[in-house]
Amino acid sequence: MRPTPSLPADIRRALENIFPGDAAVFSPEEMFVYGVDASRRHALPAAVVRPENLEQVRALLALAQDKRLPVLPRGRGTNTVGDCTPVAGGVVVSTARLARIKDIDADDFVAVVEPGVVTADLQAEAAGKRLFYAPDPASVKFSTIGGNVATCAGGMRAVKYGVTRDHVLGLTAVLPGGEVVHCGRRTHKNVVGLDLVRLFCGSEGTLGIITELTVKLLPLPAATATLALAFADVDAALTAAGDVFRAGILPTALEFMAREAMAAVAAISPVPWPETAGAALIIRLDGSPEALAADLALLEAAAKPAGPVWSRRAATPEDEEAVWEPRRLLNPASFKAAPDKISDDVTVPRGKLRAAAAGIKAVADELSLKILLFGHVGDGNLHVNIMHDAANADERNRAEAARERILSLALSLGGTLSGEHGVGLSKLPFLDRQLSPIERGLMARIKAAFDPSGIMNPGKAY
Amino acid sequence: MRPTPSLPADIRRALENIFPGDAAVFSPEEMFVYGVDASRRHALPAAVVRPENLEQVRALLALAQDKRLPVLPRGRGTNTVGDCTPVAGGVVVSTARLARIKDIDADDFVAVVEPGVVTADLQAEAAGKRLFYAPDPASVKFSTIGGNVATCAGGMRAVKYGVTRDHVLGLTAVLPGGEVVHCGRRTHKNVVGLDLVRLFCGSEGTLGIITELTVKLLPLPAATATLALAFADVDAALTAAGDVFRAGILPTALEFMAREAMAAVAAISPVPWPETAGAALIIRLDGSPEALAADLALLEAAAKPAGPVWSRRAATPEDEEAVWEPRRLLNPASFKAAPDKISDDVTVPRGKLRAAAAGIKAVADELSLKILLFGHVGDGNLHVNIMHDAANADERNRAEAARERILSLALSLGGTLSGEHGVGLSKLPFLDRQLSPIERGLMARIKAAFDPSGIMNPGKAY
Repeated sequence: MRPTPSLPADIRRALENIFPGDAAVFSPEEMFVYGVDASRRHALPAAVVRPENLEQVRALLALAQDKRLPVLPRGRGTNTVGDCTPVAGGVVVSTARLARIKDIDADDFVAVVEPGVVTADLQAEAAGKRLFYAPDPASVKFSTIGGNVATCAGGMRAVKYGVTRDHVLGLTAVLPGGEVVHCGRRTHKNVVGLDLVRLFCGSEGTLGIITELTVKLLPLPAATATLALAFADVDAALTAAGDVFRAGILPTALEFMAREAMAAVAAISPVPWPETAGAALIIRLDGSPEALAADLALLEAAAKPAGPVWSRRAATPEDEEAVWEPRRLLNPASFKAAPDKISDDVTVPRGKLRAAAAGIKAVADELSLKILLFGHVGDGNLHVNIMHDAANADERNRAEAARERILSLALSLGGTLSGEHGVGLSKLPFLDRQLSPIERGLMARIKAAFDPSGIMNPGKAY
Repeated sequence: MRPTPSLPADIRRALENIFPGDAAVFSPEEMFVYGVDASRRHALPAAVVRPENLEQVRALLALAQDKRLPVLPRGRGTNTVGDCTPVAGGVVVSTARLARIKDIDADDFVAVVEPGVVTADLQAEAAGKRLFYAPDPASVKFSTIGGNVATCAGGMRAVKYGVTRDHVLGLTAVLPGGEVVHCGRRTHKNVVGLDLVRLFCGSEGTLGIITELTVKLLPLPAATATLALAFADVDAALTAAGDVFRAGILPTALEFMAREAMAAVAAISPVPWPETAGAALIIRLDGSPEALAADLALLEAAAKPAGPVWSRRAATPEDEEAVWEPRRLLNPASFKAAPDKISDDVTVPRGKLRAAAAGIKAVADELSLKILLFGHVGDGNLHVNIMHDAANADERNRAEAARERILSLALSLGGTLSGEHGVGLSKLPFLDRQLSPIERGLMARIKAAFDPSGIMNPGKAY
């Protein structure tokens, strides 16, 4: 093993002292996997460290501040916008060994966890006590709660339960220089001073390293039920989605898929709906079994005027699994639909969904591209996968042009560049279209309050 | 009218230019009401202005920055901790004329409002379109949404729907110097840059003046139903509250009253429960009428093992009104129970409620004080009214001693000084018991990013 050119010998020695044995990694071969994330970017860091305790994180951030060493916190690398790619070199801090569930309290309705806990593991352990950690990003089985907080991850249940931010009560973080800050409390309500907890949510690793999180738990809903519907076209499906809310129903999840996305799934697995359908909705409710039976009927009635061509009620776990499986297969299916994809998560005001979907279809048609369109339409959150072959320069250029037009379309409809993925590297070039110089100035000054030397995940987010 | 000594003639002229006619007030008599808030503190400002538009706010904050003039935004003054008291003199900025509901959109599920809108007016107008603005602080009929955001107001429905913070999507604010910042979007999800929107929530008027808010609306629940229960003592009632959550029920509201609070209400109005009861719970559910009938039965079953001595199901609006009326009368009743009160809103982890209530009762007994105890126990949020006669020095000293012991008790149980009122002036002396110097340092540096000269609501909050 040899140090990479960018890491002076004294820094390497200092890192080896803080992180003995295999807790520090310097060989390019071993570091390779820590240089990539779900954005498919890659860059090699100068070192990777795997702290096991707070003291190691403190010592690291004292050293890093002193030596002006870039520091990149990293969970499981499921981030899609390049947040975990060490483009500025520096030290990647893996939370893989800060992964203890310290406490799940069925009286306080809180969990205390380290950032490296995989979110699905927390959910499962909570469910064993009839408790519910509500946020459920699509990556829930692979991503960590620390990463979820750093990006303010959303997911399917956000429409009813809110995003990750709404479930974080307190946290411990280490700041550049090694100071430790405990923000928030173990209480479900707290308004004492400026809201530092929420400031860490969605900060994309730019303020400090989170070492512990206290999150809110809810009572586990007794049961769930799902209504899956297929429609002739996108417009009918999105009309039905609006009708559900207008009927006074707040579903647990309201997922949408357009024709090309459905076809991508059908290419790898059987699907329940007719092949001719142009769009689908999968709508979940939760509550007591008695209440669910009544509410499922109301939901069917609300969705009917838009004219579904197919529908299926799923009121048992097995039946639900069958209608949700195609939605879960969408991500793996997308990777088979073309060699490459540009993945965005534009979000528009809920009433602008039909205009957004029509505009995206027009872009796909005009640029002769396959675009998979799906998403959490209860939040106005559309996932747009622009499929292409990056080896074909013309196709790549058309895909980039499509992306630019779709981001512009979302903003022109009053929307946002990102509903749940964040900015990272990939949306940075578009940031000035959404944020004013005044907003960016405030963010830069707030960042400096935490990280005056700019060592935390430099060049990302804002 | 004469200018107060603290306002130089050139500043008065400048204010008169920005705020012609009765939009500026300088006479002590007219300003008197703007110098008090629900904390019952009083101080006279140097001027009161009532802007009608953004440009006036910009001009004011340019002038104030230039002249280092303290600026205090003010809604309806229902704040209980002194946030609206102009202890440093300066200019009080009333939002009374920034009170338009600009938009309630039944497709986007958002409302756009000016800060001076009374929250109940927004709720009523939204309900007319079958839309629901969920936060409902007890002051909802009198307080403004700007004030609710500035204090991150909670309220009874927070247990199910979250606090004000969780419903603010975007805002426009003017910063010291007159710059205008638009944060957030009209979308239900947005993660682009640091979360400036949430930073304004609970900032107690220390960062800038909010001139417009975009808030999230939900579908209006089709119906509500309430179960009211009385118990022999506090411990039984709080045991039942815990059992409700353990049964998997997430109520819309879960309110608690202890014996002395019930007696205070009974002294001014008939109450439905037996006079001998030692505690009460009032629990609301919402949903479709069909679902509610089923869920009300589950709720009754969950509350039964703790042994209620009385219960009443209220499934019509009239019946619900009858059981909620005593809860609403608590605040006016408290003012009749003794000449003065110290009002706190400590919040503890939900599982520590019984310990907190027992500790508060011990303080009341030991110091021979009447303490009214009630609150939003679904959030662990206890309202503690320490009744006394401030004209009696001994009684006042005992009340202050009780307060000190109750705040210490809450912190020792892992709780917070405030769940929903904020810090203002009244909790400032206790702040170092909850916040570390590192947290306070971060807050001071963040504050300086918005307000480098420290003119916004100086001496408050943190």
